[in-house]
Amino acid sequence: MCRWLAYSGGPLPLSELIYNTQHSLVEQSFDARISTQTTNGDGFGVGWYDHREFPGMYKETRPAWNDPNLEDLCLHVSSPMFIAHIRAATGTSIQRSNSHPFRYGRWLLVHNGLINNFAYIRRDLAMTLGADLYMHLNGTTDSELMFLLALHFGMQDDVYGGLARMAGLVERLGRKSGTEHPLQMTLGIADGESLYAVRYSSEHKSRTLFHSKSKHAVAALIPPEYRERLDLFSDDAVAVVSEPLSDLPDMWDAVPEATFLTVTGGEVEQRPFVPVA
Amino acid sequence: MCRWLAYSGGPLPLSELIYNTQHSLVEQSFDARISTQTTNGDGFGVGWYDHREFPGMYKETRPAWNDPNLEDLCLHVSSPMFIAHIRAATGTSIQRSNSHPFRYGRWLLVHNGLINNFAYIRRDLAMTLGADLYMHLNGTTDSELMFLLALHFGMQDDVYGGLARMAGLVERLGRKSGTEHPLQMTLGIADGESLYAVRYSSEHKSRTLFHSKSKHAVAALIPPEYRERLDLFSDDAVAVVSEPLSDLPDMWDAVPEATFLTVTGGEVEQRPFVPVA
Amino acid sequence: MCRWLAYSGGPLPLSELIYNTQHSLVEQSFDARISTQTTNGDGFGVGWYDHREFPGMYKETRPAWNDPNLEDLCLHVSSPMFIAHIRAATGTSIQRSNSHPFRYGRWLLVHNGLINNFAYIRRDLAMTLGADLYMHLNGTTDSELMFLLALHFGMQDDVYGGLARMAGLVERLGRKSGTEHPLQMTLGIADGESLYAVRYSSEHKSRTLFHSKSKHAVAALIPPEYRERLDLFSDDAVAVVSEPLSDLPDMWDAVPEATFLTVTGGEVEQRPFVPVA
Amino acid sequence: MCRWLAYSGGPLPLSELIYNTQHSLVEQSFDARISTQTTNGDGFGVGWYDHREFPGMYKETRPAWNDPNLEDLCLHVSSPMFIAHIRAATGTSIQRSNSHPFRYGRWLLVHNGLINNFAYIRRDLAMTLGADLYMHLNGTTDSELMFLLALHFGMQDDVYGGLARMAGLVERLGRKSGTEHPLQMTLGIADGESLYAVRYSSEHKSRTLFHSKSKHAVAALIPPEYRERLDLFSDDAVAVVSEPLSDLPDMWDAVPEATFLTVTGGEVEQRPFVPVA
Repeated sequence: MCRWLAYSGGPLPLSELIYNTQHSLVEQSFDARISTQTTNGDGFGVGWYDHREFPGMYKETRPAWNDPNLEDLCLHVSSPMFIAHIRAATGTSIQRSNSHPFRYGRWLLVHNGLINNFAYIRRDLAMTLGADLYMHLNGTTDSELMFLLALHFGMQDDVYGGLARMAGLVERLGRKSGTEHPLQMTLGIADGESLYAVRYSSEHKSRTLFHSKSKHAVAALIPPEYRERLDLFSDDAVAVVSEPLSDLPDMWDAVPEATFLTVTGGEVEQRPFVPVA
Repeated sequence: MCRWLAYSGGPLPLSELIYNTQHSLVEQSFDARISTQTTNGDGFGVGWYDHREFPGMYKETRPAWNDPNLEDLCLHVSSPMFIAHIRAATGTSIQRSNSHPFRYGRWLLVHNGLINNFAYIRRDLAMTLGADLYMHLNGTTDSELMFLLALHFGMQDDVYGGLARMAGLVERLGRKSGTEHPLQMTLGIADGESLYAVRYSSEHKSRTLFHSKSKHAVAALIPPEYRERLDLFSDDAVAVVSEPLSDLPDMWDAVPEATFLTVTGGEVEQRPFVPVA
Repeated sequence: MCRWLAYSGGPLPLSELIYNTQHSLVEQSFDARISTQTTNGDGFGVGWYDHREFPGMYKETRPAWNDPNLEDLCLHVSSPMFIAHIRAATGTSIQRSNSHPFRYGRWLLVHNGLINNFAYIRRDLAMTLGADLYMHLNGTTDSELMFLLALHFGMQDDVYGGLARMAGLVERLGRKSGTEHPLQMTLGIADGESLYAVRYSSEHKSRTLFHSKSKHAVAALIPPEYRERLDLFSDDAVAVVSEPLSDLPDMWDAVPEATFLTVTGGEVEQRPFVPVA
Repeated sequence: MCRWLAYSGGPLPLSELIYNTQHSLVEQSFDARISTQTTNGDGFGVGWYDHREFPGMYKETRPAWNDPNLEDLCLHVSSPMFIAHIRAATGTSIQRSNSHPFRYGRWLLVHNGLINNFAYIRRDLAMTLGADLYMHLNGTTDSELMFLLALHFGMQDDVYGGLARMAGLVERLGRKSGTEHPLQMTLGIADGESLYAVRYSSEHKSRTLFHSKSKHAVAALIPPEYRERLDLFSDDAVAVVSEPLSDLPDMWDAVPEATFLTVTGGEVEQRPFVPVA
């Protein structure tokens, strides 16, 4: 459906991962290789952290491949933590408020996947939110609602718990409404300190998710002719991606089915992800 | 806030009212005279009826004044009933799904006004909807929610009743949340057979609403040099507008405070509008 | 690069060819089968004729596949002659003025192809225009310039001649600047009375062009479940397309290399196309 | 017509001048006070310098007042030199390539004004360019053409000279074509080292141009409640603007009619501007 990447490490120009890799995210916008759709042209977005209290965002409705603004932004902004997303819509409108990432305070979230038969349970999911979070609904995607639900369930204090309770609610309501496999998701989340990611689906056939093995793995994304770019990468640089940014399989660890992943200071931790029933 | 117009009569090129009048709707997009804002540049939309089962719509996020597509559409489409709207946003995003009109089946609605402190009661209003109507929420405006609530309250069978119950709910929830004057609205509604309009505000200081007095009144909107256009107007042509499309005061009837208006076959009926408490 | 279609016949809802065929133009926007690119997502446009003096146009920068306005327009507008185009940019900006068709008075033109090394000769081509036509340059594509050059060379009085002189100039200036095969084009042109098309390339490896064989051929584009739509097609209905709108090869005639095609009143004439050296 | 501002000094968040002043540029997009039009809603752009070889740009077609991307960009990007512009179109299309600034290598240019009867001389002006600069024409404005002409006339080595020859050519061709007062302009130019500005019109009734008197003048733009922001401004901070960003007349020097202005390292120099006849 969609493709995304998240980065944590030393300050890096956004362009290094969004444009300058072998199979960059922008290239994936018109030619994703292991996605269910080859075109991810229904908008995009990027969020990044700096010295400000809240992350910056740039979100658009046009395809990523034809936006000179995105090129300039990625060349001129460096950040120690950023998340980018290209969208292939699954039924909801093409509007900036439906482009990822979604932002709440210091939190950003991107999503590849969908809630099956979302329309059946959209209202009940939304009704779970209190008025304070409901007023932050700006778009109409399942993804944004999943984000606000995770916040509702305490993600700011307990990332795993908030997400597990959100996923549990989606599965409960989905099954009650007759959907066998309600949830299919790979999530990328950031708070400016750590990256988090989840690979999970009710059917246990989740979409792909990878993380880079080491600085050298991230650096290896760079085509040979630009190898001097190696110096741009810090020792603790880690990328988490829907689809490898290069054909170098040794450089990427596939994240197992039903896994919760945390990246802090260059360290990658994994634990099983189990929704709270 | 916004400006709108509705037309009922013989088939008329949309351009005759949207562009070719003395103070056309497009002119009002950058220079509204009796509006609270002179610029209505946050998107626009037009909906029209023809032989198809459902009305057509064209909605955009750019200002109406600089859209060549709108010019072409209005020149090349004729319709016996149409509604057009230019938006001045009151806090929600500039996206097509927030541009008016809103459509449900054969129904179209445009709105000038706002629910005061909408964020306080947005969730409770939305939760009044059942899952079937909730899934039709495409945007985030108070206007769209008012439309779906009126449908929820039976507008399709009883236009007055559906709107009166919707307005009553907004006032009840608004006052409960501490807002003295919750509702300010002029609504324009069409179903392909009749036009309906409401001028109402909790404060009894509603925004302006006018209807043309007769064919000759509508025709008088046309600048003298184009007076041969008179023949374009049928005897039963009626326009309902937020703001007169000409400086000819004799041509326009101001709709009184708290009024519900119906236009069918050239006949204009008015009755008091009282929300259902 | 791009894909286009042109229609001539009895008044037909635009949606019948743009959306409702087996491989519709909108489907080709994300999945063109015999194009050099599978994604044609860099904007689109449609122009149509009616009782007005000049044709109407709707042009956008977003991909055709995600534009609800286009869907509504195509459902609600019928025309006896229309041209539609989906763009895959070859280096120039994504802006409405670079979307096809281009319009001049009653004339419309769409183009699939390119002038190789256009940048080398752009100025010299443009300088061929007089001030009167130069002031109509709204965009930056080779296609628009080819259109204005054909007008400069008399296309309004002699379609073949104007195009042959334009192609000759492009080849002359291109070769002079060192380009072996300067021109690659399939052109679609309309004036409200006739359709014209050219398949030509300097290399004699032109992109595909087809026309429907008969009313029954056009009608056969319609999936079986919609076969009652047959009645929508007049006996003189003809479609000219970059890529067949169906898998029914018997229904389509491939236009030969280096051919000029005229469609008037259901009759298709072909003659060799030879640029004026 | 348009409004613009240019800044030179210590690195400053773009938001400080574009959003946070008493009459900010964004406020001027819907309410310019001394402009010939109150609405400058036909797109905008900003260009900024940093450690990269070329300046970054962000250009859009929507009004500046409703773009959350611009807000985020301005909050998160700091720069020692930047130029921003809000557009009120004078007849050419609303497309990014017609939004200012225009960029060529390290050079940026913004323009408020117009070439009267531009259509009459557009071709002859364009023809003056060689193929190398002609291929950089991305839009259709007089402003972009003035920029490329100044480059053609040597602006990169002699800013004053390049501009004076450009202005001379415009006046010569304009008068030859029968236009009494061909040129009306205030230009803002940057190369990353210095800012340049010109106030000039053939009629000697040029649009306004101002520069701040001192750091304290720039700082005085900041509303009292944000006065701690004073520290954000360096001692050599200078702003050049179409319209004062505050009601504090003592803080602004009006640039005289027919003046060329240079800002380098906090020093403002002025000299008469005389086109080369």
